[in-house]
Amino acid sequence: MVATARLCITCPDRPGIVSAVTTFLYTHGANIIDLDQHSTDPEGGTFFLRLEFYTPYMDVSRSALEAAFGEVVGGRFSMDWRLSYSDEPKRAALFVSRHDHCLMELLWRFARKELPCDIAMVVSNHEDLRASVEGFGVPFHAVPVGDGGMAEAEAKMAELLGDNTDLIVLARYMRILSGDFLRPYEHRVINIHHSFLPAFVGADPYRQAHEKGVKLIGATAHYVTAELDAGPIIEQDTARVTHRFSVADLKATGSDLERNVLARAVKWHLEDRVIVFGNKTVVFR
Amino acid sequence: MVATARLCITCPDRPGIVSAVTTFLYTHGANIIDLDQHSTDPEGGTFFLRLEFYTPYMDVSRSALEAAFGEVVGGRFSMDWRLSYSDEPKRAALFVSRHDHCLMELLWRFARKELPCDIAMVVSNHEDLRASVEGFGVPFHAVPVGDGGMAEAEAKMAELLGDNTDLIVLARYMRILSGDFLRPYEHRVINIHHSFLPAFVGADPYRQAHEKGVKLIGATAHYVTAELDAGPIIEQDTARVTHRFSVADLKATGSDLERNVLARAVKWHLEDRVIVFGNKTVVFR
Amino acid sequence: MVATARLCITCPDRPGIVSAVTTFLYTHGANIIDLDQHSTDPEGGTFFLRLEFYTPYMDVSRSALEAAFGEVVGGRFSMDWRLSYSDEPKRAALFVSRHDHCLMELLWRFARKELPCDIAMVVSNHEDLRASVEGFGVPFHAVPVGDGGMAEAEAKMAELLGDNTDLIVLARYMRILSGDFLRPYEHRVINIHHSFLPAFVGADPYRQAHEKGVKLIGATAHYVTAELDAGPIIEQDTARVTHRFSVADLKATGSDLERNVLARAVKWHLEDRVIVFGNKTVVFR
Amino acid sequence: MVATARLCITCPDRPGIVSAVTTFLYTHGANIIDLDQHSTDPEGGTFFLRLEFYTPYMDVSRSALEAAFGEVVGGRFSMDWRLSYSDEPKRAALFVSRHDHCLMELLWRFARKELPCDIAMVVSNHEDLRASVEGFGVPFHAVPVGDGGMAEAEAKMAELLGDNTDLIVLARYMRILSGDFLRPYEHRVINIHHSFLPAFVGADPYRQAHEKGVKLIGATAHYVTAELDAGPIIEQDTARVTHRFSVADLKATGSDLERNVLARAVKWHLEDRVIVFGNKTVVFR
Repeated sequence: MVATARLCITCPDRPGIVSAVTTFLYTHGANIIDLDQHSTDPEGGTFFLRLEFYTPYMDVSRSALEAAFGEVVGGRFSMDWRLSYSDEPKRAALFVSRHDHCLMELLWRFARKELPCDIAMVVSNHEDLRASVEGFGVPFHAVPVGDGGMAEAEAKMAELLGDNTDLIVLARYMRILSGDFLRPYEHRVINIHHSFLPAFVGADPYRQAHEKGVKLIGATAHYVTAELDAGPIIEQDTARVTHRFSVADLKATGSDLERNVLARAVKWHLEDRVIVFGNKTVVFR
Repeated sequence: MVATARLCITCPDRPGIVSAVTTFLYTHGANIIDLDQHSTDPEGGTFFLRLEFYTPYMDVSRSALEAAFGEVVGGRFSMDWRLSYSDEPKRAALFVSRHDHCLMELLWRFARKELPCDIAMVVSNHEDLRASVEGFGVPFHAVPVGDGGMAEAEAKMAELLGDNTDLIVLARYMRILSGDFLRPYEHRVINIHHSFLPAFVGADPYRQAHEKGVKLIGATAHYVTAELDAGPIIEQDTARVTHRFSVADLKATGSDLERNVLARAVKWHLEDRVIVFGNKTVVFR
Repeated sequence: MVATARLCITCPDRPGIVSAVTTFLYTHGANIIDLDQHSTDPEGGTFFLRLEFYTPYMDVSRSALEAAFGEVVGGRFSMDWRLSYSDEPKRAALFVSRHDHCLMELLWRFARKELPCDIAMVVSNHEDLRASVEGFGVPFHAVPVGDGGMAEAEAKMAELLGDNTDLIVLARYMRILSGDFLRPYEHRVINIHHSFLPAFVGADPYRQAHEKGVKLIGATAHYVTAELDAGPIIEQDTARVTHRFSVADLKATGSDLERNVLARAVKWHLEDRVIVFGNKTVVFR
Repeated sequence: MVATARLCITCPDRPGIVSAVTTFLYTHGANIIDLDQHSTDPEGGTFFLRLEFYTPYMDVSRSALEAAFGEVVGGRFSMDWRLSYSDEPKRAALFVSRHDHCLMELLWRFARKELPCDIAMVVSNHEDLRASVEGFGVPFHAVPVGDGGMAEAEAKMAELLGDNTDLIVLARYMRILSGDFLRPYEHRVINIHHSFLPAFVGADPYRQAHEKGVKLIGATAHYVTAELDAGPIIEQDTARVTHRFSVADLKATGSDLERNVLARAVKWHLEDRVIVFGNKTVVFR
């Protein structure tokens, strides 16, 4: 499989952007195989673009291409842009507490080569899931939150992550991470919330849903920000429930939703399909 | 088509209820064609039952049957029960302001004989939809909210409704009805709310949804209580949206959801499939 | 609302197409507001593109732009291309027999300005729906299939259509149109088939579905070709059914599916979102 | 958790059945906690019933209850009936070839206690999945189809199954089992077919779907009969796909459908929610 490159761009909209970008790529030997573009407004809006190109005939190195693109195109249009390559998979860390359904789904899809990444480690505040994780050949680190509190645990986790982790997935990790810990990972920490946000924020959403008698339950994958349960939404889904569903039934149904919604959000992030702007996302699927 | 009868029961659960009910009906010549039952708990819970029976061989009149049932079965089990008949359709009034999509859907299904009721009238605070409504052969009454305020309008509407209206459907009626007006119609006023409650309660939910960047929008049909946007939910549904959707696009997508969700809720109510308990519903579909 | 233009392109894939197209448009003052592209294969595949541009600052007339595009870009890449404009709506004719649900849905959305077209006429082999159609201010022509057979009826319909009809929608029109009649309208006749094609081709699909005991029923909107029930599929959807559904219930559920699926397909066609290749479609949504 | 019993009944419909059944149970101390009933026709139809009862106060043993029910009620109404108990889980065997997604889903749900059964063994014609299966503590038997052909393999598998296997699940088992092998397991072998039957029967349905350009793909779980791909359907579902989906993408999307559809069908079978009649099923959910 020949590598493809993905270019994601956000900038103020104005005429000529697509022409400049695609002409630049063409003159360097790229063949565009997928291009998706969105503008928030025909006049004075924000421009978003994701394109994928095929690189076997590129006439320059990746670093030279990036330098040239920045100079020739990026600067001219005040672009926020990034290039990534299908043969340089992102390095991901999965955080989990005790509920294993989201974690197992991700490991399983990873094993089936459906998630284009390296899973560098699973981090948990409990020992429970060590065997399951190691069975997938993925390193497992238990970082309990002990007497030193969350600060000490976060220091340990930061060390484990090193400075080359591209993505943290909170796969039902039940501790709250501090703003300091999260800061270096802006728009690179994905959480699964077990409700259709913004309904049922906060604790025990399935019990809330049961008390309210809703006819659908939902799950939401979103980027984590300092404000809990409120970062940019990547993906959501709902499932139909009835009066026959106990809280336990809602949880079981919700678990299925959660693992599917989270898996989709992670996949799209890894394929560079998600661009954040303000408190929202553009998802080029 | 021979008439069928529907019996809906709520009572404290204990052994022997189904046996008592079905034996009573059998001894009077009824053939049960559909029975659905639910208990909230195997011990000390609440018992709900809906059954439909076929009546060509009944040995007593309807009023005699009801009197006997109340004496022999209803009282013994402290039942809250009601009997209705497919050949005695409910009398419904539809309230609307200017958005016609929900109203038209209901009138259309009514014309196609998909809604088993008599639509006695459409009431609106505007004249706009008179021609569309009268085209279906349904009386239209404009009751504007004038100098006399809502109290005067409600008095006029109460008079129009008379004392034999079984159901009021708020098909995007944008005025708030008072507790006094609603009181006689407990669990008999259905509203469509243009969001997935309890998310986005209050005004302009599609704008709220747009600002929040949700990936699904929803609609909720519920019984109206004094507390706005908070009565027992009958039906909900969601539709997928993307970053490309403007507020207007969300509204158009939402309109389709609203008319379908409301139509289902109204149909189930008319078929006596909905039993309210506390702030929730049992929907026997 | 300023007009936008839509450009749809199919051609053999090779490097430089997007660059050539967008540079051409940019140099003539177009601002691209939406661009979607697909290639069937990175090497030797087929290239599809739909883009929408904003035209207030165009420096040439539409006909000049089209002539120039054909010369400068279209010919060079052996393109099959078409340009259309949001202020030149397509002229549509709706064909129907007796089932009105699809027709009413289309007329209703047309009245709500959700379908960007002119509905020039409704043609039916029966008189039944005249009043309903004329209520929308749309001309109704009954063309019964009489002693002269289908040939005579088709001759009459061809005359009614004239030579400026862009789209024919078969909204449950139950007669089979001949290849001769259809020929001038390749990829411009949309039919709704009341099943999830290719399951249940042929007559009475709901009865077939009932006998087979399926748990979902479907509907399919497709372009009509000489081979019945087999043209390029534009849109499909399914709905859940149970053992409780009679054939009549399946039909009622199916009617809702049909009208929604057909309405989506027609809307996408009118917005030039559908490109046919071989027996398939690309739908840029 | 106190055990519950489930009673499933099929018989010719006539008045008095529910009364007789529930009165019998009541007089023996059962408390019905769930009852669902269906008749194909109000006159001369077939009657189906599933009820669940709570047994802590039963006055007789299970075998005595069954003997009495057969005598007093079953015989009188010519019933086909069965009783099962939540504390006597069914004994299941899973058959698989090389695709592990359906198998893993079932093992995983089994491990999460979402599938009320004993998984006695996994049988495969390949060694590939031994480690994955044994990791769940479930015995794995490789029964390759060698020189002795399918007959020899089936003899070996029949021996492994013994005479106390209640359910065989074909979780992507790619060999065709003979009528002789299947005979003892009528309505107790569940297969997952990777299409929305009856569309795309036969080999390589995802390639067929790709060639046809469908906009949805499906999966079907059904009981296996001698006629391939054609037994009574238990559950189906579909997922939306687009022109961007390669055959491999369709397979990946389909795999997710398959495992969910199969898991639901197996769960409903294990909970005695499925009654077969002719070539269809009643599913009491």
